Order: sequence, then structure tokens, then C-alpha cells
Amino acid sequence: MKIGIVFGGKSYEHEISIVSAIAMKDVLKEELIYIFCDQNRDFYHIPNNTMKSKLFSTGEYKKCDALTLKKGNFTKKAMFGDKNLEVDVILNITHGGDGEDGLFASMFEFYNLPYIGPRKGACSVSFNKFLTKGYSHSVDVKTIQYKYYTKNDSINVVQYPVIIKPVTLGSSIGVSIVKTPEELEYSLDVAFEFDDAIIIEPFINGIKEYNLAGTKINGEFTFSIIEEPQKAEFLDFDKKYLDFARTSTALKADISEELQVKIKESFKKIYNTQFDGALIRCDFFVQDNEVYLNEINPIPGSMANYLFEDFNNTLTSLAKALPKTKDIKITYDYVNKIQASKGK
Amino acid sequence: MKIGIVFGGKSYEHEISIVSAIAMKDVLKEELIYIFCDQNRDFYHIPNNTMKSKLFSTGEYKKCDALTLKKGNFTKKAMFGDKNLEVDVILNITHGGDGEDGLFASMFEFYNLPYIGPRKGACSVSFNKFLTKGYSHSVDVKTIQYKYYTKNDSINVVQYPVIIKPVTLGSSIGVSIVKTPEELEYSLDVAFEFDDAIIIEPFINGIKEYNLAGTKINGEFTFSIIEEPQKAEFLDFDKKYLDFARTSTALKADISEELQVKIKESFKKIYNTQFDGALIRCDFFVQDNEVYLNEINPIPGSMANYLFEDFNNTLTSLAKALPKTKDIKITYDYVNKIQASKGK
Repeated sequence: MKIGIVFGGKSYEHEISIVSAIAMKDVLKEELIYIFCDQNRDFYHIPNNTMKSKLFSTGEYKKCDALTLKKGNFTKKAMFGDKNLEVDVILNITHGGDGEDGLFASMFEFYNLPYIGPRKGACSVSFNKFLTKGYSHSVDVKTIQYKYYTKNDSINVVQYPVIIKPVTLGSSIGVSIVKTPEELEYSLDVAFEFDDAIIIEPFINGIKEYNLAGTKINGEFTFSIIEEPQKAEFLDFDKKYLDFARTSTALKADISEELQVKIKESFKKIYNTQFDGALIRCDFFVQDNEVYLNEINPIPGSMANYLFEDFNNTLTSLAKALPKTKDIKITYDYVNKIQASKGK
Repeated sequence: MKIGIVFGGKSYEHEISIVSAIAMKDVLKEELIYIFCDQNRDFYHIPNNTMKSKLFSTGEYKKCDALTLKKGNFTKKAMFGDKNLEVDVILNITHGGDGEDGLFASMFEFYNLPYIGPRKGACSVSFNKFLTKGYSHSVDVKTIQYKYYTKNDSINVVQYPVIIKPVTLGSSIGVSIVKTPEELEYSLDVAFEFDDAIIIEPFINGIKEYNLAGTKINGEFTFSIIEEPQKAEFLDFDKKYLDFARTSTALKADISEELQVKIKESFKKIYNTQFDGALIRCDFFVQDNEVYLNEINPIPGSMANYLFEDFNNTLTSLAKALPKTKDIKITYDYVNKIQASKGK
């Protein structure tokens, strides 16, 4: 299978997308075609043997062939007219903005390219942590209580410690744990530098965290193992970053069968039909045997390959079972009716 | 001001978008440039003097100049290379799919075109009635209780009458009121013909309904009058259709100052920062003096021009105060750090 890996993007997570994309070389056995989106949203075809992070940091990628989106294909200029880039399916591995906020999903839909990744509706409920809260409520999955604030709101924290999160950033960017009132202002400044809105949650030290990845293929769920991620008090961007390069298999969490089922049931509710076409990772908290959604990663770091027993098979099976878009037939019946009623 | 009106789209509401677009000729005093998206998602520049519904139903529009999206502009083929279509701002008046589901929002963002209309995040919470419920909950606005079902769920209605709505259709398409168990199956078939998921709400006969349109310009809300829409038991597509052609001013609802304030406060909570850049109409129910959101129309029929005292001024003021996208500077600091730590 020819998999076109789209990565980069105008995104705070541009760099970790590069790392994730490189990791795919080690874990996918298919033919990979690398499609880079730079910060100006220009696309380039990156030959596999040059796929090293340095190519991007030095700007050398600009010497690669430029790509244009046309209906059904990425194309490049060739001697005689345009030449199509041959791919069977796109793997969207653009973390954060562009990839996870629905922009690329819309582009691929418009240009009619089959792709693995969250569709546009799924993007917005996972990309914006505030909307994730509302969505979880709708599908009956608990989340940690929170307050939502925009830039000019007066913010009053009653009990510390709290965790402050910009609503639309991933990979812990702009996130702080605030232990005392003195630290609040600085942390708010940091968060609001990245985003116009934030949520504040109580920070529960030592709360158990479990990650589960999965996808739905022809109506059936395929799950990864459940992992209890290793963590310091909290993983900041630098530490989390290394996660995106992970390719060796993780260890299964040592939890009861009952809790595993609960976590999987919560995953199913979240995945719903919204995330059809995507392989996602949900990060859960567990307290007093209750499962709480922490966040949805609709394009997890290195596609969470390290959680799957047979990642290559899972991904290629998904590629063959992508959701179809509805065909809409426009009949002009109503326009004709109006013309008739107007007598013209 | 040169306003590029984008309408049509691959959408069940394609035809009413045409009607809405035509209505703009009567209510906007600016220079209008009509940009039609047909059901195949090909764009055409429609000269103003040919803007009649018949042009589209007959397929005659295909003789108009084809347009291509490029960075910063729609372009058309000209004698020497491409020629830009000169517009100052896009007005997205594509109802339903493409316009209201985030697809065009993403395209305009990608190609860097300023536009009046909901941004992609706002689209998904208004386009999908199920997500609207969760969103309303998050911003603390009540909605009518509901059940959510997908295609293969077993559906059990305890008390009639109920109203069945496909989650992603507008303009009452696929919506039915079901009064008896015998009518249920047929109505479900109709709804699921249009969508994979539905919500079922109790149908409250005679509940008061009020519509309010508005927008936020430089942080300040501008509201329309509040209208009590005329209705039969319920407006089906045919009846609602005529609404999209409305250009004469509506009558103000005869309600208390207190209720007006309550409705406006609910509107503000819904609009939040999510809908920045859009002029929207919220349809509310009122029961026992409590305000419930019925639905958000992020691109209301004929832009709800008939509710505004000075529609032209409201729209052009909004056009001058559109939200800016954040500039993201990619430094490659992290990639460099990884390279350093790997010693290569």
C-alpha cells in the first residue's frame, strides 16, 4: 500500500509532527511517500532517504519538489504539465493546528483524497479542550470539573493546586501547574500567550492515568493495550517530546479486568461515530474506580504505534475501511417550484 | 466594499443558498461579486445581471468563468496567465454542508482569504445538533432534553409526541413530528436517509419561540430585534424555504424587557469567542420564563437581514473587524535539541 504521510503544518506542534513522521519509517512496512507542509502552508515531496529532522530545521527541504493540491491528488510540476503523486491513502500525522483542528480534514475532503485521520467534526471536539468537556458530557463520559475563561475574564481560584491549560494546544504547550496564588499571574500569562481561552482544573497529584488507543474498522473496535504512562509530576513539552519518537512496544498496565472494560467502554463512547476514519488515543484518569476522560488525541504521537501488537496491520486495515462521504444529488426541485409559484 | 458572496456547495441546502445569495442584491449596497460552488465543488464567477435561480437549475452557470482557489485570491484563466478576482472580503452564505460544517472555513483559512462566517471550530458545534447540546451545556445555556441515536441503535420512545431530527441537517430537512408509535418507523427511515445519527426530543406543542440574530464587532455585541417567528405547527422545508428570500423588515416580538435581556444573555453565552467573525441567528424556546436554545444558525437564511435595522452597516462593520489568525513562528529549537542530544 502506498501511504502518503502528511506532516508539519502551521502549528505549535510542527516539530513533533516531523519526529512522528520519521518514526513511521521504523514501524510501517508499506511504501511511504512523505508530504511536508511548511509553516507557510506550502507542500513539498520529501524523498524517503532525506527524511531527517535536520532537513527541516536548515530549510533544505525547500529544494525538494513543490506540491499542489488538485482534485484527487497532490501534483508536482513536470516536463509536460503536472504529474500526480501516486498514493493510495493519506496518513495525516500533523499534530496540533492544521492536522487536528479540521483544516486538513476539510482540504482532503474538498480535494477528494482518502485519508486516515479525524474528520472535521471530530477535530473540533478533540482539538478544543473546552468543547471536549461538552462532548464528553453528551456521550456520557465523566471529565474532571473545570472552569472556562477567555482573555478578559476576571479569574478567581479558590483552591490550589490547579492546572491551567490553553484550550487549543496539545503536547502540554502553555500548560502549568499552579500551587500558590503568587504563581497564578505568570501561568495565566503563559497560557494566554498561546491561546485566547483556557480551562482551569483542580490538579490532583498522583491521580492514576491510563492511555488507550484504538480505532473502528467496519464497525468493530480494535484496541491497543492499556498503558500506564510513566510520568514525572507532569510531563512538560521537552519530556513529552521524546514520546513522539517512540517505536518500541509499551508495557501493559497492571489493572483489573473490570477496570479495563470500563476504560474500553469509555473509549467506545468517545469514539462514537465522530472519530470514524481515525486511529486515536484517549488518556483517562481513574479515581475511586471511576473513569474520567483527560484528553482525546485524534492524531497521537507516532500514532501510538508502541501500544499496538500489530500496528502495520491495524493501520492498513483501517485504510481499507475509511468512511465514505455521502453523495448529495441536487435536483433543483425547490428552485423550480419557486419559479413556478412566481410565474416566471 | 467589494464583497465576494460564496454560495451553493455540496449540500442538501444548496438551493436555499442560491435563494439567500440572490436576496443579498436587495439588501446590500456594496459591490457584490458572486462566487458559485456547484455540486461537484467547482467554482464559477456569476455576473450580477445573470443572478437568477434559473441559471443554476438549467446548468447554464457552466458557461460562466471557472474559478480556482489560490493563496489570497480566487483566480480565473485570462489571456496571459491567471487573473485575480478582486474582492475585499468573502461573505460565506453557503447553508448546510460545506458552508456551515467548516469545510469552506478551512479552505478560506488555508488560502488566506478574509471571510464573514463561522470559523471551523464554531461550525462543528452548530452544524451537529448533538454537539450543540454539549456545547450549550458547557456555556451554561439550557436546551430541551434529548436522546441521541445512531443507525443501528434500538430506539425506544416512551412518551409521544416527539420530534426527530437528523443531527447535521438544517432547514428542517428530514425532521418529523411523531405523534403515535405507528408513525415512528417511517419517520426514522426518513431521518436516517439523510444522516447516520439523530436526536429525539419531546415535541412541545405551542412552545414559544424567539429568534435573535447578532454579531460581535470589536468586542461589542450588535443585536437584531427579537422576532417571534410565524409558524404552523412546524415549518417544513417548503414553508421555511420562503424565509431565505425574505428582505422586508420583521416585527419585534411583544415580550417583557426582562425576557429580552435573558434571551440576549443566552445569545452572548452561545456566541462566546467561538463565533467571532460570524453573524449568527439563535433560535430559542421559552417555557415558564426559562430560555432554552433550540438551534444555532451560523449562516442564517438571507443572513437574517430582515431582523436588522441597518443590515448593510452591521455587515460592513463586521467585515472590518474580522478575527486575525495567530502567527506561529517555528524555531526548530526542539528538533535542534534532539539532534544535539543524539550527537548528530
